[in-house]
Amino acid sequence: MMRELTVDLGDRSYPIYIGAGILNDIGALFQKHGIGKGSPLLVVTDEQVAAHYLDQVTGRLGEAGYTAASHVVPAGEKSKSLAMLEQIVATALEAGLDRKSTIIALGGGVVGDLAGFAAASYMRGVRFVQIPTTILAHDSSVGGKVAVNHPLAKNIIGAFHQPEMVLYDTATLLTLPDREVRAGLSEMIKHGLIWDAEFTDWCEANAERLVGLDPEALQYGLYKGCSVKAAVVSQDERENDLRAILNLGHTIGHALEAVGGYNELLHGEAIAIGMVGAAKLSVRLGNPEHIYTVTKRIFQKFGLPVSIPAHLDTDEIMRAMMHDKKFNEGKIVYIVPTEIGQVEINKNVSAEWVRDIVDQLKRED
Amino acid sequence: MMRELTVDLGDRSYPIYIGAGILNDIGALFQKHGIGKGSPLLVVTDEQVAAHYLDQVTGRLGEAGYTAASHVVPAGEKSKSLAMLEQIVATALEAGLDRKSTIIALGGGVVGDLAGFAAASYMRGVRFVQIPTTILAHDSSVGGKVAVNHPLAKNIIGAFHQPEMVLYDTATLLTLPDREVRAGLSEMIKHGLIWDAEFTDWCEANAERLVGLDPEALQYGLYKGCSVKAAVVSQDERENDLRAILNLGHTIGHALEAVGGYNELLHGEAIAIGMVGAAKLSVRLGNPEHIYTVTKRIFQKFGLPVSIPAHLDTDEIMRAMMHDKKFNEGKIVYIVPTEIGQVEINKNVSAEWVRDIVDQLKRED
Ligand SMILES: NC(=O)c1ccc[n+]([C@@H]2O[C@H](COP(=O)([O-])OP(=O)(O)OC[C@H]3O[C@@H](n4cnc5c(N)ncnc54)[C@H](O)[C@@H]3O)[C@@H](O)[C@H]2O)c1
Ligand SMILES: NC(=O)c1ccc[n+]([C@@H]2O[C@H](COP(=O)([O-])OP(=O)(O)OC[C@H]3O[C@@H](n4cnc5c(N)ncnc54)[C@H](O)[C@@H]3O)[C@@H](O)[C@H]2O)c1
Ligand SMILES: [Zn+2]
Ligand SMILES: [Zn+2]
Repeated sequence: MMRELTVDLGDRSYPIYIGAGILNDIGALFQKHGIGKGSPLLVVTDEQVAAHYLDQVTGRLGEAGYTAASHVVPAGEKSKSLAMLEQIVATALEAGLDRKSTIIALGGGVVGDLAGFAAASYMRGVRFVQIPTTILAHDSSVGGKVAVNHPLAKNIIGAFHQPEMVLYDTATLLTLPDREVRAGLSEMIKHGLIWDAEFTDWCEANAERLVGLDPEALQYGLYKGCSVKAAVVSQDERENDLRAILNLGHTIGHALEAVGGYNELLHGEAIAIGMVGAAKLSVRLGNPEHIYTVTKRIFQKFGLPVSIPAHLDTDEIMRAMMHDKKFNEGKIVYIVPTEIGQVEINKNVSAEWVRDIVDQLKRED
Repeated sequence: MMRELTVDLGDRSYPIYIGAGILNDIGALFQKHGIGKGSPLLVVTDEQVAAHYLDQVTGRLGEAGYTAASHVVPAGEKSKSLAMLEQIVATALEAGLDRKSTIIALGGGVVGDLAGFAAASYMRGVRFVQIPTTILAHDSSVGGKVAVNHPLAKNIIGAFHQPEMVLYDTATLLTLPDREVRAGLSEMIKHGLIWDAEFTDWCEANAERLVGLDPEALQYGLYKGCSVKAAVVSQDERENDLRAILNLGHTIGHALEAVGGYNELLHGEAIAIGMVGAAKLSVRLGNPEHIYTVTKRIFQKFGLPVSIPAHLDTDEIMRAMMHDKKFNEGKIVYIVPTEIGQVEINKNVSAEWVRDIVDQLKRED
């Protein structure tokens, strides 16, 4: 069985295919989408993903009559760099990629962002296909945001470059380390919390099946998660307003990642804590208490952290936040839940209040 | 007096202002175009241009209430690199540039392409203003092509990113070295040759005034040159077909630049030779002889080269060409004049014929 959904962006619309084993149909799907055989393809992936799936992808493409070169980068965030982009372009040139070629991202969000920026900028833009292999990548593969990091800032050099299609083979998730599974599910829960109370309930009720990678639950959850992201992005492709709601939990989350040196907390873990913080803030702003209790309970069910590791320093966290986000006269734009499945963009949250929340999150149990 | 023309690209349309001394009006022009004062600006320029005009630009902006940081790169093609992009982004971050900021290119095509790609990719795209200071840049500042080089290929990493406006102060051209002046005029003549016989005649008749930087002639010539480029680009923003005619003379031209190690011939010089070659090819294809004689005569009037330096090796030139352009079964897509002011996209030119032309160009006098 294969689920399909469309990200609706006018003439940049594209489909997301979700199913177990659909990587084997890659040749037919490429043909269906008019990807020609006259120009070589380039598969970009990381060492860990390559070990499991690169041969399968290039093999199937070869059987279907495509010429596919590959470029393998080290696993991890460090690969999202201009230096890596330069190496990918070298491989693309050597493999003879031209303006009709397609670059394929096979991997998680790191590979997706990196290969996506390569596709956006090689010859000023070639076609791009995403093959996400992490749960978190259900988020990163929708919306067309691609980027590399700069030593001084994450995701600061990039583009909006929509893929031709996303091919989500849930069978690839079976090799994903458990901690990555849970962290990825954190973004799935986020999509429920900002948009869809029913889906949030479903996530909570299916926590065990999701963490256990039950195929049917996974496919439904990813389908719904992608659908929420697609709905938001369709209404605000270039992040002028609505798209900001996707940042629920990210204000504190990004700061925690930074202060933890990007190796203590995974992104999904950091934003789980951040979402609990946003729920606390919500209650402080006068919203019903259950927003906080439900939010916290869900993340606990998924074995995700809900408190800030005590050794992380509050001052440092606040400094990282001020560096990342714009404070205007001590106020910050903050995504705050107003109900489960609903958020507001609150432009009037004070640094002081956020600091209080951070302090409380360090004592949370 | 200020001339104004519009590059017509739907909601990406923008104006080009041409006049002597208009840099002094930069504050008013920025305000007119809704560039706000709440976010810092960044002026990117090169050492040579900085020495002449950076203080003027940042000074006038400051007087108008703008905060303008600057980043100065070494002069020359080497600065069009990812390494330089990384440095510009560091400066942008330190200066606090945000999504509402504008990056300004003050300089020739090198600075325009580099700063333009920085603007296209910083935070996934911020606004961009071009202040061309070379004659060649009348070409590079129209059309939105921006890029950096890769060690293996020129302009291979880039984007299409249209500026908010182009501010062409012809007074800045007075400090341009004479050789750069002539080389820049080569692209101006090209714009006549591909599109406008009358303008071609005018160029020939005004060769001396143009080379001597007569303000009135310059302004008219740049206005016409930009107009032709704008007309072509309006019809084919992303280079699918028509835009190819802008490559008149560039097939041989690029090969000559490469074989000369990018320091023997300036771009404008190389394409002058290339345009004489294209005219020769035209005659060989059965078009009237005067296409060749007129083309050659014009470039000679401008003191531009019309023959290939004898020590450049024909085999090497052909190899560079094959590397740069796609040959399909020994045939190449070639821009060939069919009359003065008119060209065709000929898809049936053989490598052999081009080789003959290259050989003849080495004996040309
Ligand atoms: N573009 C966007 O909209 C967007 C949104 C969210 C996150 N992101 C980016 O995504 C990145 C994080 O993505 P991620 O969490 O997927 O990280 P990741 O790509 O680094 O993958 C996590 C780890 O799992 C390994 N892995 C991936 N798939 C596997 C599989 N199927 N089997 C075994 N191992 C596998 C990888 O090698 C890596 O070590 C960050 O850089 C973040 O900035 C982008
Ligand atoms: N984007 C496009 O569509 C496009 C089109 C054509 C060319 N280009 C690019 O343009 C570049 C060449 O541009 P260019 O010829 O302007 O070269 P350039 O920018 O290197 O300028 C030439 C030299 O003149 C100096 N200079 C510039 N303005 C001056 C002034 N007013 N007074 C004194 N010195 C001055 C510079 O410092 C430099 O040394 C190439 O990289 C080419 O790829 C781009
Ligand atoms: Zn996230
Ligand atoms: Zn040119």
